[in-house]
Amino acid sequence: MANTEPYDTFRWVPVHEHGQDEDGYLLVLDQREIPHQVSYVRLVDYREVAEAIRDMVVRGAPAIGAVAAYGYVLGIKSGEPEDQVYHTLYASRPTAVNLQWSLDALRQLQTTNWRRLLWKANELVASERLMNNKIAAYGAEEILKRWKQRHHEGCKDETLRVLHHCNTGSLATAGGGTALGVIRKLAALHGKVHVHVNETRPRLQGARLTCWELRQWGIPYELSVDAAAPFLMAQGRIQFVTVGADRIAADGAVANKIGTLMIAIAAQHYGIPFYVCAPCSTIDLKTPTGAAMIIEERSATEVLNPSGKSSDQWLAPVDTPVYNPAFDITPPELITGGIVTELGILRVRDQAGAGIGLAEQLQQLEQRQKQISVE
Amino acid sequence: MANTEPYDTFRWVPVHEHGQDEDGYLLVLDQREIPHQVSYVRLVDYREVAEAIRDMVVRGAPAIGAVAAYGYVLGIKSGEPEDQVYHTLYASRPTAVNLQWSLDALRQLQTTNWRRLLWKANELVASERLMNNKIAAYGAEEILKRWKQRHHEGCKDETLRVLHHCNTGSLATAGGGTALGVIRKLAALHGKVHVHVNETRPRLQGARLTCWELRQWGIPYELSVDAAAPFLMAQGRIQFVTVGADRIAADGAVANKIGTLMIAIAAQHYGIPFYVCAPCSTIDLKTPTGAAMIIEERSATEVLNPSGKSSDQWLAPVDTPVYNPAFDITPPELITGGIVTELGILRVRDQAGAGIGLAEQLQQLEQRQKQISVE
Repeated sequence: MANTEPYDTFRWVPVHEHGQDEDGYLLVLDQREIPHQVSYVRLVDYREVAEAIRDMVVRGAPAIGAVAAYGYVLGIKSGEPEDQVYHTLYASRPTAVNLQWSLDALRQLQTTNWRRLLWKANELVASERLMNNKIAAYGAEEILKRWKQRHHEGCKDETLRVLHHCNTGSLATAGGGTALGVIRKLAALHGKVHVHVNETRPRLQGARLTCWELRQWGIPYELSVDAAAPFLMAQGRIQFVTVGADRIAADGAVANKIGTLMIAIAAQHYGIPFYVCAPCSTIDLKTPTGAAMIIEERSATEVLNPSGKSSDQWLAPVDTPVYNPAFDITPPELITGGIVTELGILRVRDQAGAGIGLAEQLQQLEQRQKQISVE
Repeated sequence: MANTEPYDTFRWVPVHEHGQDEDGYLLVLDQREIPHQVSYVRLVDYREVAEAIRDMVVRGAPAIGAVAAYGYVLGIKSGEPEDQVYHTLYASRPTAVNLQWSLDALRQLQTTNWRRLLWKANELVASERLMNNKIAAYGAEEILKRWKQRHHEGCKDETLRVLHHCNTGSLATAGGGTALGVIRKLAALHGKVHVHVNETRPRLQGARLTCWELRQWGIPYELSVDAAAPFLMAQGRIQFVTVGADRIAADGAVANKIGTLMIAIAAQHYGIPFYVCAPCSTIDLKTPTGAAMIIEERSATEVLNPSGKSSDQWLAPVDTPVYNPAFDITPPELITGGIVTELGILRVRDQAGAGIGLAEQLQQLEQRQKQISVE
């Protein structure tokens, strides 16, 4: 398998390419059409951006954050009141902390100069790309180290088998991906990597997006229904788990795509290291534990009629009551590997199994980073 | 919700209704069309019966067993060699032990008198109905007893919340159902029962069939994607789990629809009793443990294209490699409630947590049953 067309998850397009950015708009890859079609949506109004986020034209917490930033630029550029732009975009997806984080980064500039805001949005995206690369490097290094320890160095020719849930690749981020970026880096460093892809019902991001991205990247993969994951583990088909995160509480509890908790419980049961890969912006130190997290409930039709068919083709009787939480919360004791960030790996449990909060570790890693910069 | 049309999962139709059964054929409800249409397939040739089993016109281990028995009658009636009829039907689904069991029951008569075989097939179905009723009674009694113990009798007005996977109702059996029959009985005895239905990918038997049956029966239910089940448990939404079984090994390991293991691991994690409900014919004492069980792998298109759409509408890139095991194996230590059979409840672990084989318990229960009959 070879790389096919390159793709952009989103791109700011300056209209006057050869002069000043007098005007501009946002192009967003319509992920609802992947894997069957690569098409872009042109967004010129901040309300369209909010709608695109709500309708999942773009999804994945970091990608949402980046697109929302450009949405803020568009809103201010058209002279709309700051608060209205902020709140409209903020309300488009309730769980994603990156959304709030990037909107705050722009609002903090306290300017209505949209060029200045655009500069900041571009800067956010550039630093996001860098972050993704660092997450990929830290995660791949950690997993390879741990694998070699287990296999006593005799694993150079063996295939490393990783389970992945949902989509956390380029399509979900503003860069090379988080959990899927780690897998890509693993493939680059080790060569033989095999990815077990969870289809990720109800919206099938694993089947639709992750399979498509892995195919673009030339990494071997295999798709299964979500509920098969524990059986794959029982059969010895999985050595590591990597997932992303939508929001991480101060105690290390992780809100992520529904099904993540299922995998974490099974991984603990079978002694398989479970890694969460996410930028530090996903960590919300103001949220003390998972219990304080709000879970987004989405519509019944997502479950009953994922491809928008007529009601006589629905997956269940049309009046079926549905409980459809978009995310679940994995408690810290199940994050057995660690949380891979751009600053390094955060541990949620110490060697004795006691809980360690993330705030202090984050501070230490930041400190170390500053020292490296100074040196 | 009121009961709607009654339905037969299968029915032998004697052609000469007013005289002797000179001829006859088999009507089978096409479960692939549920919940959108109630239509029957007319089968006159044993090869058509094998095909119907393979194509899942009929599914569910006990229903397959019953339909296969009538298939055997049809084969012998048309003068085909016994062995050929037996093996063709036997090969139609490799995991279902009831299939072999009911074919053996007919072959053991060593007769080519098809009326005698038909009489036996009818007898098998009648005793299956009785079995289902007994399973329902034993299971409901056990769960209510346990629930009252937990809630100190103060639960008369509270809703009892049960999780169910796949379909084990009238559609899956020759009677009122196994695990779903227990739920139906619970609703009859207690009144307030709420069923959490797992959609059961890839073939969505939960969404399509269980929702439909619960609606026919007027029992409140709610549908979720499979991987949400552990999160429902974490939220306290589930008090008991009931599932069926395709095959049970002598040590109590259970082969059942993919996803069963996932539920069992999560149920143990959250201390929720896990019950397997199945007739004794599902127990295969010749299979010592789960490791000896053959797992049926089914086609990639079941996962990629469940509703038979054109390839530009598939759920993933069309050349996606898929691992699609039809069943998984739940080890005995996770059967924390017990195995509900028509003879009573088998325990897989004693009070100290040590494994107890099923053979001796079965013998004791059979003994007791005989005593009751004599008395």
